[in-house]
Amino acid sequence: VSASLPLAGIHAPIPTPFDADGELDLDALDRHVTRLAASPLAGLLALGSNGEAAMLTDDEGARVLERVRAAWPSTRPLLAGVGRESTRGTVRAARRAAELGADAVLVRPPSAFRSHVGPDALNAHFRAVADASPVPVLLYNLPGATGFSLTAATVEQAAGHENIAGMKETSADLERLAEFAAIRPGDFVVLSGWAPVLYPALASGAAGGILAVANVVPDQCVELYEHVRAGRHAEAAALQRRLTPLARLVTTGHGIAGLKFALDRLGGGGGHVRAPLSSVDQAARLAIAQALDPWLA
Amino acid sequence: VSASLPLAGIHAPIPTPFDADGELDLDALDRHVTRLAASPLAGLLALGSNGEAAMLTDDEGARVLERVRAAWPSTRPLLAGVGRESTRGTVRAARRAAELGADAVLVRPPSAFRSHVGPDALNAHFRAVADASPVPVLLYNLPGATGFSLTAATVEQAAGHENIAGMKETSADLERLAEFAAIRPGDFVVLSGWAPVLYPALASGAAGGILAVANVVPDQCVELYEHVRAGRHAEAAALQRRLTPLARLVTTGHGIAGLKFALDRLGGGGGHVRAPLSSVDQAARLAIAQALDPWLA
Amino acid sequence: VSASLPLAGIHAPIPTPFDADGELDLDALDRHVTRLAASPLAGLLALGSNGEAAMLTDDEGARVLERVRAAWPSTRPLLAGVGRESTRGTVRAARRAAELGADAVLVRPPSAFRSHVGPDALNAHFRAVADASPVPVLLYNLPGATGFSLTAATVEQAAGHENIAGMKETSADLERLAEFAAIRPGDFVVLSGWAPVLYPALASGAAGGILAVANVVPDQCVELYEHVRAGRHAEAAALQRRLTPLARLVTTGHGIAGLKFALDRLGGGGGHVRAPLSSVDQAARLAIAQALDPWLA
Amino acid sequence: VSASLPLAGIHAPIPTPFDADGELDLDALDRHVTRLAASPLAGLLALGSNGEAAMLTDDEGARVLERVRAAWPSTRPLLAGVGRESTRGTVRAARRAAELGADAVLVRPPSAFRSHVGPDALNAHFRAVADASPVPVLLYNLPGATGFSLTAATVEQAAGHENIAGMKETSADLERLAEFAAIRPGDFVVLSGWAPVLYPALASGAAGGILAVANVVPDQCVELYEHVRAGRHAEAAALQRRLTPLARLVTTGHGIAGLKFALDRLGGGGGHVRAPLSSVDQAARLAIAQALDPWLA
Repeated sequence: VSASLPLAGIHAPIPTPFDADGELDLDALDRHVTRLAASPLAGLLALGSNGEAAMLTDDEGARVLERVRAAWPSTRPLLAGVGRESTRGTVRAARRAAELGADAVLVRPPSAFRSHVGPDALNAHFRAVADASPVPVLLYNLPGATGFSLTAATVEQAAGHENIAGMKETSADLERLAEFAAIRPGDFVVLSGWAPVLYPALASGAAGGILAVANVVPDQCVELYEHVRAGRHAEAAALQRRLTPLARLVTTGHGIAGLKFALDRLGGGGGHVRAPLSSVDQAARLAIAQALDPWLA
Repeated sequence: VSASLPLAGIHAPIPTPFDADGELDLDALDRHVTRLAASPLAGLLALGSNGEAAMLTDDEGARVLERVRAAWPSTRPLLAGVGRESTRGTVRAARRAAELGADAVLVRPPSAFRSHVGPDALNAHFRAVADASPVPVLLYNLPGATGFSLTAATVEQAAGHENIAGMKETSADLERLAEFAAIRPGDFVVLSGWAPVLYPALASGAAGGILAVANVVPDQCVELYEHVRAGRHAEAAALQRRLTPLARLVTTGHGIAGLKFALDRLGGGGGHVRAPLSSVDQAARLAIAQALDPWLA
Repeated sequence: VSASLPLAGIHAPIPTPFDADGELDLDALDRHVTRLAASPLAGLLALGSNGEAAMLTDDEGARVLERVRAAWPSTRPLLAGVGRESTRGTVRAARRAAELGADAVLVRPPSAFRSHVGPDALNAHFRAVADASPVPVLLYNLPGATGFSLTAATVEQAAGHENIAGMKETSADLERLAEFAAIRPGDFVVLSGWAPVLYPALASGAAGGILAVANVVPDQCVELYEHVRAGRHAEAAALQRRLTPLARLVTTGHGIAGLKFALDRLGGGGGHVRAPLSSVDQAARLAIAQALDPWLA
Repeated sequence: VSASLPLAGIHAPIPTPFDADGELDLDALDRHVTRLAASPLAGLLALGSNGEAAMLTDDEGARVLERVRAAWPSTRPLLAGVGRESTRGTVRAARRAAELGADAVLVRPPSAFRSHVGPDALNAHFRAVADASPVPVLLYNLPGATGFSLTAATVEQAAGHENIAGMKETSADLERLAEFAAIRPGDFVVLSGWAPVLYPALASGAAGGILAVANVVPDQCVELYEHVRAGRHAEAAALQRRLTPLARLVTTGHGIAGLKFALDRLGGGGGHVRAPLSSVDQAARLAIAQALDPWLA
């Protein structure tokens, strides 16, 4: 799979801009995608957690995807988040995303009934989606949100499916990432979703990352990736140390509202969040603005 | 609120039956509601977690609600689960449920972005829903699923809203339930969602329960409730000890598939689950069948 | 066992008073035990968590036990905490405690290596201690401190040993307590260690409690117990609601320092804590003083 | 501090061998230390968790330390675990360890009363120990055992003390390790305690490691360390992939019993564990033996 679809490298999980009334602001979205298209980013992820996917109707999601596809070069992969609680809902979302131009779909494990969905049921879920999806599937492990982690055994089973191309691992646990990366090196692609460990993740076998901060400083995220590919480890480690504080501010620190504020400060494309999320307060604005300054020079 | 809407007593959170293809089986639903209507249950909850709400489209949810309302006596309250990740989505679902005949709506806290939705944002969410909902709102605390618990302070704030009538507490933590029940005794109604502690919950201030096992043995759940109301504590404790093993089998033990199997064994109304949930295996069937036997005499 | 040793009722887990230099203050200890001896408490627990046992040397523990035994009526049970990480250490501590006059010993499960001590090893540990102990053994389940809970299966195995008389359950989880209490009703004694659920625990099968707040208001704790025994449930529930806020202040709220401050305010017997614990601050002092006021009338 | 005491590099946390009766087997200990002295290991840690410190009396600990000191070259650092629940106990243990020849002491945070020991109290604890200790202090963060993690703020405060030379971080969380390593690079030494992330830890700023598996294959652990120092990242990553499965077997997989079995298979120095720990079963023996084979060639 990975031969035909270039998944390696740095991807940005784009936010979904809303206006002050909470309606989709597709023009702001367009501006942001256009800006990223001018960067060396490998790809985009639309409708992920950073895209407030859980806040969108299916129709809104479709409108977002159409607009992103129109603005993003067809030569670079566009991923779409399609995870749902039911297998049938996920299949439907994957098919829709493919119709709208997604090159691959990202499937988070169902978690609402996690105590009664064992390894076999998870595997059946992933395989059913992969069987039905017209485009390659990436698994999505995000234990901080779902309350459980995929095991290496589950990932290994899934990785045997010809339409499952890789996964996103969103945690700081490098032992687990390395274990996933060792399953089918070079064939089953592992992308890190945790920017503060991007360098050690790449050094440990990750093929790239899908990182909120890549919306903010795409060039530098790609630069870090290229440092590692070229064996410039000291440079990669140094850039990581600079990147981490900013990465935290737009993720664990202040969440999507922080990310959107950073984008608006850089020229637009962030927009409002939907309640119950709320805008960042004055202290957060100041902290983000100060953290951005050195990168704007 | 509670004066006009009788929320006290035992409610059944009804499952949503599917056929072998995973389609809604509304006739099975009708049979189950009709059976419960012949019992002394105080009320029903449709589209709760036991209703596999996370697996349903909005249209399917509407069809379920219509059918339940038609079969359930208008003199007894029908509650509907309407929690969504966004405030606007929850408001929309609450209005729709009220149009379709729900007498009250149950709102679980948004949890997808829980680390960035603080007490103020939660309170704003609940109040916005209560402002917009044509029918009373009940909060829903289910820490096992959401990964966090509502605090007494948050509940107390919400309880001050004239359209927030009470809450469901789904845990075995009796300290927390008692704290919630002490907020506005007699006015803000606390219903337990954890059958193995029904008796101590009622003794500690709960006004009733919303219990999966009440789908299976409604009469005996109501009997336990009446024992406590009448001061027959020894009888209540003894009945609790009988009830607990069965309650576990259709909840923590085997989940919704266990509940559905039990209902089908009692004459129908359970049906299939939707993937990634799966039917109970042979050992579970045997255990549930054996646990049901003494109650069928 | 329980026939000969009266374990039912309310016990106080006494703190260990230190002077300003952190040395044992045995006279203060004596004053506190003497005060409690004038109350209707069923028994005492020395060298439990409230006794800062983890802060004491073995010799200090022995001096504490001797002094408590001297001041506490021989007709009423004195329990001693003897849990250690090794089986041999626990056996040694149990023998020493029995020599010094303890009527029973409380054994918390080893937890330092919990991921490599499975059910069989735990069972072997408890049985080895029970085989060697000259006095009856009580198990101690305190998941908040050890990071795991004893299972019903483990307790049931242990309860079959003739020298294991019961257990202390320190949590607000009434489902678990009821499960333990149902193992050998009337024979294997379950004592609650969580005062805010004392009433529902007694209603659910607990034979009594070992409660920090019983150091502060022993008469009222016993009164609640007697209410339940006599079937006065409304009175028990009302007293519980009064007791809970005070109980929290001297446990989860401000810990042992809070308990000691409360005792000193009542006339002595609290004393200092050992570092890294620290005295309560001014706000805590005020809160505890205000909470005590109504009980002093 | 680190100028005078060479803490960088790979250290082995040695186990404490017992005979079949559970008594100290100091001759076995001597054999193991002598074997390690012939390796290029930087240093040893005695009386750590792998040393079953929680199972030892203070006198046993002293005998272990004496014997290790006698067999371990005075030119290479010997660290001793001295953490206790009380500040006074930790101070006493640190002084004793220094008298017996330890070059530095490792202090795990007290955890028995963790909910009432806040950042200020932790800081006071570490500083009091550092003030009193004749030899440098290393902090020990092991959240899997204590149930909480030291924060960067707490470590930063402690790192300002002239007698606190560094810390051991035992987790797979590379974001946290990198944060600690960035506090005083080159001055405050961070050693990883999690072998499966040794390579990314070293790449992210760790100065070395204290690793159970370094008891088993000391040369190869040092080789990995040297690869990173020399910029041979591909070789380091490849060696890490070989090392990880063995490292897991003697830690998370089978614990100290697994480590001891591996040592005995290599020629002795492991010995028995103390109950409630138990020997590895036949399946574990086979797995460990097979994992060792490739390293023995």
